[in-house]
Amino acid sequence: MTGRPRTPEFDRIAEAFGWSRDPALPGDDAALLPGGRLLCCDALAEGAHFRLDWSGPADVGWKAVAANVADILAMGGVPDAAVWSIGMGREWDDRVFLEMCRGAREACEAFGCSLVGGDTVRCDGSGFASLSLLGTLAVERPWKRSDARVGDILCAAGSLGLSAAGWAALRSGRAEHPSAREPVSRHRRPMPPVEAALRLRELPVGACIDISDGLSSEAAHIATASGVRLVVERELLEIPPDLSAIGDLLGLDPMDWILHGGEEHSLLLTLPADRELPEGVRRIGRVESGAGVVLQADSGLIPLRLEGWVHR
Amino acid sequence: MTGRPRTPEFDRIAEAFGWSRDPALPGDDAALLPGGRLLCCDALAEGAHFRLDWSGPADVGWKAVAANVADILAMGGVPDAAVWSIGMGREWDDRVFLEMCRGAREACEAFGCSLVGGDTVRCDGSGFASLSLLGTLAVERPWKRSDARVGDILCAAGSLGLSAAGWAALRSGRAEHPSAREPVSRHRRPMPPVEAALRLRELPVGACIDISDGLSSEAAHIATASGVRLVVERELLEIPPDLSAIGDLLGLDPMDWILHGGEEHSLLLTLPADRELPEGVRRIGRVESGAGVVLQADSGLIPLRLEGWVHR
Repeated sequence: MTGRPRTPEFDRIAEAFGWSRDPALPGDDAALLPGGRLLCCDALAEGAHFRLDWSGPADVGWKAVAANVADILAMGGVPDAAVWSIGMGREWDDRVFLEMCRGAREACEAFGCSLVGGDTVRCDGSGFASLSLLGTLAVERPWKRSDARVGDILCAAGSLGLSAAGWAALRSGRAEHPSAREPVSRHRRPMPPVEAALRLRELPVGACIDISDGLSSEAAHIATASGVRLVVERELLEIPPDLSAIGDLLGLDPMDWILHGGEEHSLLLTLPADRELPEGVRRIGRVESGAGVVLQADSGLIPLRLEGWVHR
Repeated sequence: MTGRPRTPEFDRIAEAFGWSRDPALPGDDAALLPGGRLLCCDALAEGAHFRLDWSGPADVGWKAVAANVADILAMGGVPDAAVWSIGMGREWDDRVFLEMCRGAREACEAFGCSLVGGDTVRCDGSGFASLSLLGTLAVERPWKRSDARVGDILCAAGSLGLSAAGWAALRSGRAEHPSAREPVSRHRRPMPPVEAALRLRELPVGACIDISDGLSSEAAHIATASGVRLVVERELLEIPPDLSAIGDLLGLDPMDWILHGGEEHSLLLTLPADRELPEGVRRIGRVESGAGVVLQADSGLIPLRLEGWVHR
């Protein structure tokens, strides 16, 4: 598995927080508040989510913003204002702090929101960055995991597998290889598909989710929440030249990154089959009756995720 | 010093985030957003801000909410909805997580807001809780640090020194002594003065700030931001029986806790001198021309904080 788990306790959180009890809270990528406001929160822990020798502190700041922007986009929203806490790791100096702030500001500029406040604390050991983002719903009804319908097509907006490939290159010490440049850069600075999300607002999007833990596990969330089976069609999954090259270099199958790679922060969504797809959105499969997620390959249907599967 | 520094990098943050450049951002306890929304963020790091042998996990959840509620109250706002990240410390088990959620939910109920979402991450070492709170401005103009006027009176809403006394009792291994009960309980579960803040909304509050790092240092923030001198009058500072008793027990001067104790999450504010004070708000000094913070005692004026002093 190339994807590293980000929120292994999701179901426990929902239960412990009592979210399912309140119908106003979709339990999706962001919470929907009265007045069409959206609020979400994503933390990056040193060691688990970043290493300062693999990503510069400015990249960590960028990623903290990008991960939350993807959550807001996945609900059909636009990002407005962020606050964050920086947990200063024991070894971090001022430069780490200032660089992290710089990267977060750059991401806010790129994605059209502002960083308006924060808090710093000193940690005993490794550090963290925890960012919360307030957004505004930009569509009539929020896009939820539970709204995939049989007959819909399954689509992706944004890249797939690049972050995981970059991570693999870093882990193998091959980050300097020319073919690793783009994947490593995307691992350090993910690019949620802001423009494509803007175009999608004109369409009757069914389900939508941020790909933070991998296409296969996000698809499983949609399948479970919507009560459908998702078929990912292998022949629709293009392998970009960069991914092929880095896969050859490392002796790994790039399709694993595309199917299971995390921290990409692209969008997985469903649309009625008769719609023309806007720029930046491509079909990668279909929605059928049934349960779970399968890959339709030359050899037949391969189960990717079973119904009720909990990612960990 | 009994107060433990919470945000030692405040000025660096403001600079690094570029807050001072945007006049819409007061750089106060919470950021003011368009539409009268307030957004703030406060993190608690294990080791630096809590020890699970001194506070139960439910208390930590409570404190994460309370600290942010105080920030919203200090701007003249009401708290609405919170999201948080929990950084699961290496040694934490499920019970820690569930208890922390329970405490946060109890605090939300007590203070009139809701916990609507969150994220968990696994940390390599010690854990953290980082909470963000969205609020709504409930007064015409936000209460800011910079609005103390010469001739105003200085007031406090909520308790003073209890949390620091409780912390001292815990540190000395005397938490089981009867006189330590209330201070320890308040250290574990601070009580921002929600009712008093509600009453204050009817009055022309000048400056206001959350007492998170200690009365003396918060007063210094107001004095510096407003360009005035604050005189804290010793004879107006009542020492509650609990504080006297625990001071006697530990051989410490309770006035140190009142003046410098942190994590109380009460409010320090200024009001015109001619107003009748509402229940829960008491006068503790006055605003003069000049700079810094002084204590007016029997022996004369004692400097508490100098102009331009930066707490660390």
